[in-house]
Amino acid sequence: MKRISDYAVMVEEALRGLELAQMKPESLYAPVAYAMEAGGKRLRPALTLMTAEAFGVDNSVAMPAALALELFHNFTLLHDDVMDNSDVRRNRPTVVKRFGADAAILSGDAMLGLAEAQLLALDDKCYRRVAEVFVRMARDVYAGQALDMEFESRNDVTVEEYVEMIRLKTGALLGACVEIGGLLAGVDAKVASKLREYGENLGISFQIEDDWLDTFGDATTFGKPIGGDINNNKKTFLLISGLTAGGEESKALEVAMQLPAGDTKVRAVTRIYEKMQLDEKVHKEALRYSAKAMKAAKATGLSDAKLEGFKYVVDRLSGRKK
Amino acid sequence: MKRISDYAVMVEEALRGLELAQMKPESLYAPVAYAMEAGGKRLRPALTLMTAEAFGVDNSVAMPAALALELFHNFTLLHDDVMDNSDVRRNRPTVVKRFGADAAILSGDAMLGLAEAQLLALDDKCYRRVAEVFVRMARDVYAGQALDMEFESRNDVTVEEYVEMIRLKTGALLGACVEIGGLLAGVDAKVASKLREYGENLGISFQIEDDWLDTFGDATTFGKPIGGDINNNKKTFLLISGLTAGGEESKALEVAMQLPAGDTKVRAVTRIYEKMQLDEKVHKEALRYSAKAMKAAKATGLSDAKLEGFKYVVDRLSGRKK
Repeated sequence: MKRISDYAVMVEEALRGLELAQMKPESLYAPVAYAMEAGGKRLRPALTLMTAEAFGVDNSVAMPAALALELFHNFTLLHDDVMDNSDVRRNRPTVVKRFGADAAILSGDAMLGLAEAQLLALDDKCYRRVAEVFVRMARDVYAGQALDMEFESRNDVTVEEYVEMIRLKTGALLGACVEIGGLLAGVDAKVASKLREYGENLGISFQIEDDWLDTFGDATTFGKPIGGDINNNKKTFLLISGLTAGGEESKALEVAMQLPAGDTKVRAVTRIYEKMQLDEKVHKEALRYSAKAMKAAKATGLSDAKLEGFKYVVDRLSGRKK
Repeated sequence: MKRISDYAVMVEEALRGLELAQMKPESLYAPVAYAMEAGGKRLRPALTLMTAEAFGVDNSVAMPAALALELFHNFTLLHDDVMDNSDVRRNRPTVVKRFGADAAILSGDAMLGLAEAQLLALDDKCYRRVAEVFVRMARDVYAGQALDMEFESRNDVTVEEYVEMIRLKTGALLGACVEIGGLLAGVDAKVASKLREYGENLGISFQIEDDWLDTFGDATTFGKPIGGDINNNKKTFLLISGLTAGGEESKALEVAMQLPAGDTKVRAVTRIYEKMQLDEKVHKEALRYSAKAMKAAKATGLSDAKLEGFKYVVDRLSGRKK
């Protein structure tokens, strides 16, 4: 049986087949080619291929939709990098640094256009259902990004609001990747919604675990320095959970967050998180969403053998503690 | 019979019906509402309604597609204003000035999402054909914008390249507005392509005439100070025609364009254009594209009575000399 990484390899090859670097006008598509060459896990399109195959659809038939979702994902990264003025992504200068903000905006738009052009390869039977999911997903992702930006200047964000934000920002796309995989096979509305539920909860679990790893992970396996979120005052699941818990420790956390960025701040905040047992609680919360994801996957009626791939992805993405 | 402005009034009302200002999250949709409230001629969606009606489709049935095209148009303006860092549009601060670049980028994306959500209101019979035209059009518009930006730093742009750029940047959307109007009525591929041809040539004619008016128009009816393009060294149809004509006057034009911005420069360049008889030639060129537009419209087989509306638009947009 194929692993998620096997699907990712196929996606990589199909992306090369698009020959983005040859597209005209060059000033529009060179940044697109640059962004897509940077690699990445190709998790989203791999999920589409895996799901479609689980329901009997050939990888080659599912590939255009898979590519559309990967192009969409990278389009959002391009625009996010302009908004965040990010310097580096995947160990290379971002498109905005390399080509400038104008190119990043316009080439981002063009990537979305390319994504939608890929969807046009689908046959009439599923095109409309897939397009509906795609359009709704895109609007969810923008809403999630807007909420994320709103939260930066708010001090009263609740855990529920945070989860809704990451459901939109991270979960909606993963949900659409899995749902669209099923739609390519013509699954009914109930199965489609269970597939989406799997992907959404996978996304929420992944994001909470990511927040957890940023404070409690291992720098070598996490790939980023530990404590970055604390130093950047990022509203994470940990921080929001800590601030909204109430009591002495919430106040202490508020004070510790006022410290200047540095190891002292990271240590102080981490110690308060530990005192509040947030290290355990938040990790458990991630696992709770993983369990919800698998419950939804099982409700699709797929065989245990086919569910293995879905389980593997959940374990890899949100069981990253061990 | 309805005039194009009657359709525009209907569009305005339907836009109000969307209640954009009530959409959540507010930070995402307030800039969208602001941009759409600014008015404008609503020419594009009016063309869609007019064309659909000419082929027997009710305005109410055609409205979602018309709104999609108007939302798309305004989305491109939002992103263009970020790229140009424009201060004012339709006598108000631009979205980028009022809400910042981040909001303008993300809310622009959301406007495109809203546009595509409108298209989902179409029935199965025409949804796919309309979506195909929409996706191709969007990619054309981005290509046109990219070429326009490329041309800024090039000194060897030919008239042919310029026309292709405005066909993409201005013509493609007008073409899609008219073509989609026809597709809503289920016209065949031949008629659809003639409708697109009408809109594309209308767009080219309009843009050439706009370039002409910027130098030879009347400030009061044109609505902008005369000579702006000359002072901004904008690569217009006039300038490119003059520079690529060859001979003494082309060289004189090159020299005059080096002058510092001001009335002296505008007068000097205008005098050279007149010596080269570009005032007449370029205006004639605009009329030539208007004639192509009408020829295509006639080839759709619409009755003379129905063609009147199409003729009126051409005359109003590109016969603006008188």
